[in-house]
Amino acid sequence: MKSDLDQLMQKYNIDVVYVHGGEEPNMQRSYLMNGAHTSGVVIKKRGEAPVAIVGSMEVGEAAKSGLKIYTPFDFGLGDLRRKYGSNQEAVMRELIPAYFERLNLSGRVALFGTADVMVTAWLALEVWSLLPGVAIVRDFEAARLFEDAYATKDEHEILELKKAARLASDVMAATWDFIAEHSADEHGVVVDGKGIPLTIGAVKRYIQLKSFEHGLDNSHGLIFAQGRDAGIPHSEGEDSEPLHTGRSIVFDYFPRLTSTGYFHDMTRTWSIGFAAPEVQETYDQVLESFNIVADSLKVNDHGSVYQERVNQYFESKGHKTSRSHPGAMDGYVHSLGHGLGLNVHEAPSMGNYSIGPALTAGSVFTVEPGLYYPERDLGVRIEDTLYFDERGILHTLTDFRYDLILPLKGRSQ
Amino acid sequence: MKSDLDQLMQKYNIDVVYVHGGEEPNMQRSYLMNGAHTSGVVIKKRGEAPVAIVGSMEVGEAAKSGLKIYTPFDFGLGDLRRKYGSNQEAVMRELIPAYFERLNLSGRVALFGTADVMVTAWLALEVWSLLPGVAIVRDFEAARLFEDAYATKDEHEILELKKAARLASDVMAATWDFIAEHSADEHGVVVDGKGIPLTIGAVKRYIQLKSFEHGLDNSHGLIFAQGRDAGIPHSEGEDSEPLHTGRSIVFDYFPRLTSTGYFHDMTRTWSIGFAAPEVQETYDQVLESFNIVADSLKVNDHGSVYQERVNQYFESKGHKTSRSHPGAMDGYVHSLGHGLGLNVHEAPSMGNYSIGPALTAGSVFTVEPGLYYPERDLGVRIEDTLYFDERGILHTLTDFRYDLILPLKGRSQ
Repeated sequence: MKSDLDQLMQKYNIDVVYVHGGEEPNMQRSYLMNGAHTSGVVIKKRGEAPVAIVGSMEVGEAAKSGLKIYTPFDFGLGDLRRKYGSNQEAVMRELIPAYFERLNLSGRVALFGTADVMVTAWLALEVWSLLPGVAIVRDFEAARLFEDAYATKDEHEILELKKAARLASDVMAATWDFIAEHSADEHGVVVDGKGIPLTIGAVKRYIQLKSFEHGLDNSHGLIFAQGRDAGIPHSEGEDSEPLHTGRSIVFDYFPRLTSTGYFHDMTRTWSIGFAAPEVQETYDQVLESFNIVADSLKVNDHGSVYQERVNQYFESKGHKTSRSHPGAMDGYVHSLGHGLGLNVHEAPSMGNYSIGPALTAGSVFTVEPGLYYPERDLGVRIEDTLYFDERGILHTLTDFRYDLILPLKGRSQ
Repeated sequence: MKSDLDQLMQKYNIDVVYVHGGEEPNMQRSYLMNGAHTSGVVIKKRGEAPVAIVGSMEVGEAAKSGLKIYTPFDFGLGDLRRKYGSNQEAVMRELIPAYFERLNLSGRVALFGTADVMVTAWLALEVWSLLPGVAIVRDFEAARLFEDAYATKDEHEILELKKAARLASDVMAATWDFIAEHSADEHGVVVDGKGIPLTIGAVKRYIQLKSFEHGLDNSHGLIFAQGRDAGIPHSEGEDSEPLHTGRSIVFDYFPRLTSTGYFHDMTRTWSIGFAAPEVQETYDQVLESFNIVADSLKVNDHGSVYQERVNQYFESKGHKTSRSHPGAMDGYVHSLGHGLGLNVHEAPSMGNYSIGPALTAGSVFTVEPGLYYPERDLGVRIEDTLYFDERGILHTLTDFRYDLILPLKGRSQ
């Protein structure tokens, strides 16, 4: 958690955390700025509170962070602009070293943030790596600093994540009910009381409206995918396609609290009206694998242990996995889960080759096994968000039933 | 526009455009991938169509782009994972050169995109700059490639931007009407029929709901700022604060079409019920400056010409400007305008030191002069989005009146 940062900087031998970025969303900056929405740079020396350098128009918003705030003009930008006009390279060649000199930044400096690639590469080659007394940390080991901090949540963050879980579960329940109010026509197409087909686009619109009403947004996407699309893990689904009875539908819902940015992540697979035998069998195996994990999870295991267990289970049932067949497009083709917080994907991670922190007291993470057969119009995934409390006891944050068959209650059924 | 890219690559002496990025939003990638939502790399050699390298789970979504799609497994990721396991640095040291070798990338390679800073800096220092036959373009001149392309819009883009303009203007009109239905109590607080104060948070919620209903989202923010906050250009406003008669309110609305990502950007300043003399006088000057620009805009002028004109006008009225007083926090403290498209800020820009393309046929851009006096609880900005059609004729996309005073029609007024 955030209060561990000094200790983690010591662990990774980092003297200065330098979070670079422009106007793009920047999770490490948001985290250090306690949610204030600004562009600019945040710098933390080991043992000291972070400080921010933001545009002069952003000082008001930046002040909400509680950090000490500078603008580039405090480091001579006014003079540099007079001297170099529109020559940004010349300005930055002097401005960035001024940050380092006046803030006394030296030693092992680890770069973080999200930013423009061309500018970042230029800074790396032409400015940062040439600063006197500064060694830019060049091993990815140091990248684990924030991942390690994210891997456990403090009390404030747990409250936000519980709130997101409750609201997201409510939206999923409302979506189930919304679909259930429909009926099916003689071709198995799901229709409303007037016989008009219910499309995936209309369902997504309903989900988005309910999300909004619950203070959630789907800024990172929304998967509601049927049949072949359900068999492609990242397909978001086809808006124009009507829902159809007896097909597997993967609904992966990962909204964010609009207020504070904390995520929830949950997936259910539904088959409307009835389930074809192959869908039911696949579903049963995925649910079994989910339960194998949920029943055995314990603190201080690394997530990859459970990925391994799920690989073994699915391989024993004759499926390919991304371990047995790297790059496979069907079978079990992704990681078992990931942490979440201000990022929809963060530590701890549970892939074949995942490194980084183990599951530990304070970890919040997903468990999401799945099986994918796009050529057979089939995909199944089940996902909950779980967490270990400070005593190491496992809790499920997601609160929604695991039914596969979604029965229609509409009058013309 | 997009069809200019080969010609622009020639102009900037770029052999290969290499768009690097992870899961973060990445506008250059979205632009080249025609709106398909994936992570990964997009590469365009001069004279050839772009190709993409995306995760194996994203192939379906990526195919919507119409580009040729690869996965890292086509470049040996399977073997590299077996060889190096979880050692990402070792994997990337061989995988990235394989992209360059097998796709025959050489010559002057310009890096673009938005990505993790640590990884980008590492790639710059340890991989990209060491590739045989490759010269990483190190001058920001090349960054103008996309800016130049963005600076004019093709027919398809103009249609999207017109749609965004019409919908955004409708939402602003609805917001005006929503506020106007209220009344003021004896302290000047704006209240509903039950006497409950109307807060900025409630107005923003209304705006967001209307945005959603119109197929717009406010993913990049929403400014509805009153009094002192109106005097801080990037302050988003205080949700808990009730609206009050006679105070300047800056409503800067820059939503995006949820479907395709194209932006609109417009600002109005309102004073509810009446305007204090200082607010009215400041408003009149900002509107005057707006009209000076709108009445004189012509194609092929650089935007900085108009920034200069506005600086002169405001300075003649006794205000500080960011030209006369760099870093000033009051007066006229920002740029006159910017292009917009898939980015809320792109070329052409209209600042004191702006470089890049002039205003030209096909340009879509904002004009947004303002005056800011936070210590006097005062801020005013007026902004429209305009465009020059292919014949160089100026059109205003924004469609909303310039009234300062928003009269209350609620019954208890």
